[in-house]
Amino acid sequence: MSYEQEVKEKAIRAREAARRLAYLSTEIKDRALLQMAESLIKNQQAILEANEKDVRSGKEMGLSKALLDRLLLTPQRIEDMAEGLRVVAALPDPVGEVESMWTRPNGLQIGRVRVPLGVIGIIYEARPNVTVDAAGLCLKAGNAVVLRGGSEAINSNKAIASVISAAAAEAGVPAGAIQLIENTDRAAVGALLKASGLLDVLIPRGGAGLIQRVVQEATVPVIETGVGNCHVYVDEDADPEMAVAIVINAKCQRPGVCNAVETLLVHQNVAGRLFPGLLEKLKEAGVQIRGCAKTRAYAPWVVPATEEDWATEYLDLILAVKVVENLEEAIEHIYRYGTKHSEAIVTQNYSRARQFLQQVDAAAVYVNASTRFTDGYQYGFGAEIGISTQKLHARGPMGLKELTTYKYIVFGDGQIRQ
Amino acid sequence: MSYEQEVKEKAIRAREAARRLAYLSTEIKDRALLQMAESLIKNQQAILEANEKDVRSGKEMGLSKALLDRLLLTPQRIEDMAEGLRVVAALPDPVGEVESMWTRPNGLQIGRVRVPLGVIGIIYEARPNVTVDAAGLCLKAGNAVVLRGGSEAINSNKAIASVISAAAAEAGVPAGAIQLIENTDRAAVGALLKASGLLDVLIPRGGAGLIQRVVQEATVPVIETGVGNCHVYVDEDADPEMAVAIVINAKCQRPGVCNAVETLLVHQNVAGRLFPGLLEKLKEAGVQIRGCAKTRAYAPWVVPATEEDWATEYLDLILAVKVVENLEEAIEHIYRYGTKHSEAIVTQNYSRARQFLQQVDAAAVYVNASTRFTDGYQYGFGAEIGISTQKLHARGPMGLKELTTYKYIVFGDGQIRQ
Repeated sequence: MSYEQEVKEKAIRAREAARRLAYLSTEIKDRALLQMAESLIKNQQAILEANEKDVRSGKEMGLSKALLDRLLLTPQRIEDMAEGLRVVAALPDPVGEVESMWTRPNGLQIGRVRVPLGVIGIIYEARPNVTVDAAGLCLKAGNAVVLRGGSEAINSNKAIASVISAAAAEAGVPAGAIQLIENTDRAAVGALLKASGLLDVLIPRGGAGLIQRVVQEATVPVIETGVGNCHVYVDEDADPEMAVAIVINAKCQRPGVCNAVETLLVHQNVAGRLFPGLLEKLKEAGVQIRGCAKTRAYAPWVVPATEEDWATEYLDLILAVKVVENLEEAIEHIYRYGTKHSEAIVTQNYSRARQFLQQVDAAAVYVNASTRFTDGYQYGFGAEIGISTQKLHARGPMGLKELTTYKYIVFGDGQIRQ
Repeated sequence: MSYEQEVKEKAIRAREAARRLAYLSTEIKDRALLQMAESLIKNQQAILEANEKDVRSGKEMGLSKALLDRLLLTPQRIEDMAEGLRVVAALPDPVGEVESMWTRPNGLQIGRVRVPLGVIGIIYEARPNVTVDAAGLCLKAGNAVVLRGGSEAINSNKAIASVISAAAAEAGVPAGAIQLIENTDRAAVGALLKASGLLDVLIPRGGAGLIQRVVQEATVPVIETGVGNCHVYVDEDADPEMAVAIVINAKCQRPGVCNAVETLLVHQNVAGRLFPGLLEKLKEAGVQIRGCAKTRAYAPWVVPATEEDWATEYLDLILAVKVVENLEEAIEHIYRYGTKHSEAIVTQNYSRARQFLQQVDAAAVYVNASTRFTDGYQYGFGAEIGISTQKLHARGPMGLKELTTYKYIVFGDGQIRQ
């Protein structure tokens, strides 16, 4: 079967399933999620064997150690995937919620009710756990899903998808609700991007290259997830101890993720107090510093920053540091180089905190907290499909609610328009 | 200046203005809207003269009567545009609304606050009043706007845009907030479609051809407005009198708009009672009926419907009519041919009303009311930028709120992630 045919046929099957999924009872959806979890555990031997194949050929292909680690499944990781499904089962169902309802002067009662999006396409890279996470979240929100994982994980994904699809169907989920594209040709992604009319939305999860391709080529509506060139600005009225703790956390706690800080901006009046302790601690933590001239005046060992550094999402233990004259310069720098993901100010000054919150345009703006909190779990959504960096539909962490849309339901007694 | 250059320069100017517009006070925005209204009236002579040029060359080019009527401005129509701005000034400002705020176990306070989208591109056709409406709505929601109207109205649009821009700037709105693309080359639309990074969203307002082009070519996120192949289903338990009133209203009150009904579905058990009165009335109102075989058994004078009729948005005094066996067949027909705009059931049966509301996937689903109510004014939004037929971001009538997005603001006391 050609990849176009595979994409089309599976999308159509998902579409058919989506019709019934849209009003499937929460009871059946939750039962399905629990059975999927159980079935993952029961079939872990088959999944681990399939994964071994992927890891073996990954090694032969010379995949990096980091990539191989993402690819690798263990009994513990399978248990984690199962636990993720159980957590989603326990979350409230967003579908059917009437967010507001009002009555017009002519007696029409108009309500806005949450409904599923329909068919969601997910394009992702090496990690096979996304297959389970995405399928679980989409199912709970009443959507069918068409999954397209990286070719490196194809055997793992096939094993996982077959296990969870069967468990879901057994629990009463319409057959076809979970589709995996098995063709590993890059062109199959192209076919998904052009499947408008079949897919309601595409969510790419991966690096900047994938996201750019999707935005450029897709005719299906896309929710962009992604790039986070995040800043922490330490104001002149910052508590230095708090500033150090936040910067270290935002950079080092998990440097490879989108909500980690990439550039530190420091008010000139606080640099002298802040830098000695902070820069030493960052160095000890293994962070390479790339600083502006003023930063290097305090610490000559710092690597000089280039224009490119301000615009780079390192996703690594590297931090660009710039001394600024005032809050305005910090806001200007963030406007110019930021990617509207997560931005933080550390300050005890009330007016400047307000100014930062108001004038910085990003999915999440923080006062006196680490940017690392931009995350569906940390926000209390219970689960996350990704973090949106676009402005339409959903912004920031996306939980179950963001996988739905709404429709208006209108109750009348024969009203006609005058 | 080339069209690429014009689009780029104007979008950049809009972008700069958008930064300050995002937190411009409601007071200044409302004052600007009122002054724009006043200025339209004061400068109506110049606007009418520019419009005369457009109408003259429109006649020479052989524009249809309907198109010429849309193009034509009169003192009354200018007063209507001004009144529209006054209405928008009186509406509540959506920007800054904190929709919800909660506290996490670690003490972080997380709030979701409405913010403008940024720069909105509007692509529209002949009607010059859209220039005023769109500029007013975008301004109130804190957005800069890049307008690209049809070439037939270029002189009118230039005159209007210059008047309202000047008035807005005088009231304190950042210069550049309202941009009009003056190049009438079709390719200028293409440049807008590709202006990602400069425009935050594009809203096309026009016929199916324009919408299709936009969806196919745009790399900027798009809110699709548009096509409405709407249905009224008359159930066997319908009140026949109510059914007649609703069908006549939905077809005839304004046949050229997207929320008018295009296909009538009638339960077989009610056809005999309904048809004699209804079909005669429709005929009297000048409606051409295209019916299925069963419909023609009741009224042999009815034109036979073809497969194409079920899929057509006539936007005219034509109605397709089909007799169905039951509610399920009606829902199936709507799923197959509908465009997910507005769908209505007429029934006194509680369970079937619920089933229709639940199983029909459309922006607006009605029980016992005319589809003509799908409209921002009728829903109580006070104003409307268009009706979305897509599922992401906004669905159905779009008022001021739909021209905004949100960001998360997070207040901490030094929280770092564990």
